[in-house]
Amino acid sequence: MSQKPSIPQGTRDFLPEVMLRRERIFSTIRSVFRAYGYVPIETPSMEKLSVLTGKYGEEGDKLLFKILNNGDFLKDATALDDYQKLSFQICERALRYDLTVPFARFVVMHQHELSFPFKRYQIQPVWRGDRPGKGRYREFYQCDADVVGSDSLLYEAEFLAIFDEALSRLGIPAFSILLNNRKVLAGYAELAGAPDQLVNICTAIDKLDKIGEAGVREELSQRGISGGASDTIFRILSFEGSNQARLDYLQAAFEGVPIGLEGVAELRETLRLRAFLPVYKGQVEISLSLARGLDYYTGAIYEVKAHHVQIGSICGGGRYADLTGVFGVPGLSGVGISFGADRIYDVMEALELFTQDQTAPVQAMFVNFGGGAMEASLRALAGLRSSGIAAELYPDAAKLKKQFAYADKQRIPFLVMIGEDEVVAGVCQLKDMRSGEQRTLPVPDLAEALR
Amino acid sequence: MSQKPSIPQGTRDFLPEVMLRRERIFSTIRSVFRAYGYVPIETPSMEKLSVLTGKYGEEGDKLLFKILNNGDFLKDATALDDYQKLSFQICERALRYDLTVPFARFVVMHQHELSFPFKRYQIQPVWRGDRPGKGRYREFYQCDADVVGSDSLLYEAEFLAIFDEALSRLGIPAFSILLNNRKVLAGYAELAGAPDQLVNICTAIDKLDKIGEAGVREELSQRGISGGASDTIFRILSFEGSNQARLDYLQAAFEGVPIGLEGVAELRETLRLRAFLPVYKGQVEISLSLARGLDYYTGAIYEVKAHHVQIGSICGGGRYADLTGVFGVPGLSGVGISFGADRIYDVMEALELFTQDQTAPVQAMFVNFGGGAMEASLRALAGLRSSGIAAELYPDAAKLKKQFAYADKQRIPFLVMIGEDEVVAGVCQLKDMRSGEQRTLPVPDLAEALR
Repeated sequence: MSQKPSIPQGTRDFLPEVMLRRERIFSTIRSVFRAYGYVPIETPSMEKLSVLTGKYGEEGDKLLFKILNNGDFLKDATALDDYQKLSFQICERALRYDLTVPFARFVVMHQHELSFPFKRYQIQPVWRGDRPGKGRYREFYQCDADVVGSDSLLYEAEFLAIFDEALSRLGIPAFSILLNNRKVLAGYAELAGAPDQLVNICTAIDKLDKIGEAGVREELSQRGISGGASDTIFRILSFEGSNQARLDYLQAAFEGVPIGLEGVAELRETLRLRAFLPVYKGQVEISLSLARGLDYYTGAIYEVKAHHVQIGSICGGGRYADLTGVFGVPGLSGVGISFGADRIYDVMEALELFTQDQTAPVQAMFVNFGGGAMEASLRALAGLRSSGIAAELYPDAAKLKKQFAYADKQRIPFLVMIGEDEVVAGVCQLKDMRSGEQRTLPVPDLAEALR
Repeated sequence: MSQKPSIPQGTRDFLPEVMLRRERIFSTIRSVFRAYGYVPIETPSMEKLSVLTGKYGEEGDKLLFKILNNGDFLKDATALDDYQKLSFQICERALRYDLTVPFARFVVMHQHELSFPFKRYQIQPVWRGDRPGKGRYREFYQCDADVVGSDSLLYEAEFLAIFDEALSRLGIPAFSILLNNRKVLAGYAELAGAPDQLVNICTAIDKLDKIGEAGVREELSQRGISGGASDTIFRILSFEGSNQARLDYLQAAFEGVPIGLEGVAELRETLRLRAFLPVYKGQVEISLSLARGLDYYTGAIYEVKAHHVQIGSICGGGRYADLTGVFGVPGLSGVGISFGADRIYDVMEALELFTQDQTAPVQAMFVNFGGGAMEASLRALAGLRSSGIAAELYPDAAKLKKQFAYADKQRIPFLVMIGEDEVVAGVCQLKDMRSGEQRTLPVPDLAEALR
């Protein structure tokens, strides 16, 4: 009984070439996190439903992948005609939806084993039952760093440097790191006479790129914000100028609005500290219209956009006042960022940054001539591997055409040939598969030639 | 509404110290796989139920974690009084149970994009609804390498070298790589006059360590194998001697038993080829009683055991004649191995191989004296990080006692102090936290001193 297999909608197999590129992205980000003192943690793929539900809004709850209880899951089930209710009776666990809620749960459970400020990074897949679409998957990696237990703006400044260093080291030639502060947005709400509408104002402004000024005005008006108040907000949002000019403009506009002035002061201090940290290719830009959709941010907010590619933001983040209150431990503030690995991949592909990549499985393949020649090849091969050069021997003394075709298809850059004549002479033939050039060299020189 | 959170039974949080140790295990194995030309793939965490069911026996099917369908999963459900039947009506997907079946599915789906022999490794978690217990988890990483599409014994020999190199590089001081061949076991079955009982004989012999000779004899007898036949088998199993002597003994015993002789010849050729590959600390041992439980092995079988620790096998593997037949592509043979990362971790912990580990989050922490001293610290810190040294600055100019306590708790090896006097002199104080020693040095010499 055979079957033609397939994979679930919205999921992906990663073939070696793509894997090697993805690993380059993850390992670059990871090494920058490490340099700044962030350490890795991992949490289980499944969390208790009670930990996850209610944390992502009503929509988010519907997108959780629930895991059926083992054994007779119907034993205590009563809601056999109400699938929503029933799902909670037959499932105790679900796959994690993001890394933030599991991290909050982790901090609460292990608070007495950790030292604060606690700086962690976490690179693991998450699952969401979204309708699959272009660039939208049901399983994808998140790549987060957070520090909790400190209000120091040093971390805000360091995250600017981390974005800059990681993306620059990946070769992304030009990108903007947008920075704003929720206290600035609270200032807008005050100026608009609607201090209680902060979340709605953020949600509306967050859509500016998508729905334009008219759309945002419409949305603000639906939420009871007057046309005059909208005018005030859009007068600020439309201000153009250097970072310094923007901050000066805001400061003047916020005269008598303490929360707004506090936001400006935090932005100034963050930029001041950032000036002491290494600078690569990213441009830090104070964005007066950056709002971010998530409602738990209370201070700095970030978004990173690559230039020359229309793909939305590739990173984001912000400061939150209360990570763990929902789990009974209030007052733990922090700041965190997230790299969107899939989008970074797409940017790098669009900008052809992978073309120089070495994605061949090995640097060299030894042609297999059998017998004593094969034995000499194995010895030479061992030497290469111990020099840190990935290499292999074709497994059989097959026809040369077949062996060459394999190396060609795998895009292996070099072929090494040790036949009977070469064994006698203690040499090998090295063929550069790209140039077609072939030369004879002593076997001990092989590692050097392949470096 | 707060809740005291916990994680599902049988799952684990990994704290930074454990993560760093685990990463060392994975990265060592990964780099050996890469040196031998194995390339990474990843498959989705969830597979279609139709891909997984029936592949792990009736017991395995019960241990699958099924994922509830999104939306109104009850719409077409009819078996509301039969939980087993119902589970297939309300779940289309399950979490993967191992990496082998997903790999087979992968090879079939991507056969036209791959070159054969295809050598892949895969390091991902798997999920099993086993009763949790000591060392038995419901989520754990598997770490597999397989080559498919070749019968060459070169791969059998290389896997011996891969076990040897990876475990030796992890510092495991002494371990045995047990090698046998299913054709040798088929030879036993022939000699015992029960050639059709191969699987039962393997299953019984596989339990020798657990239930002893009497237990195995009992089990063989229950399966209709006579006492005389058992005598024949145990006479062979009890033979002691060098690898060469064992092979010679087997060869004599298998006179007129072609399948057994074929197994002996394969073992000889594997050892012959292995002699051309690098040798570290592992001892290859032809084990006449190694059988392995899984029924799909058809050639070489492996198991690795660490000396001085009672923990069972830490690696395993073997050759199979037909990886993908169940998915409609017969005739693809291969050989694969698996490293048991959790057990390797336990062995390394039991042998105290982690004591020399560097699990501090950073190599050095700068004490924060605020003001201009803090700025000078930030500049020096940037220099360290760009030299590849992980370092951090305490985020606030807090009391020294508090800053020292943080560094101490994190086991950070070095403190760097740049106060106002040091700023003027262009120097820093470097304190070795283990020895307590403190010295003054020019800031530009700091990176060198911390290497």
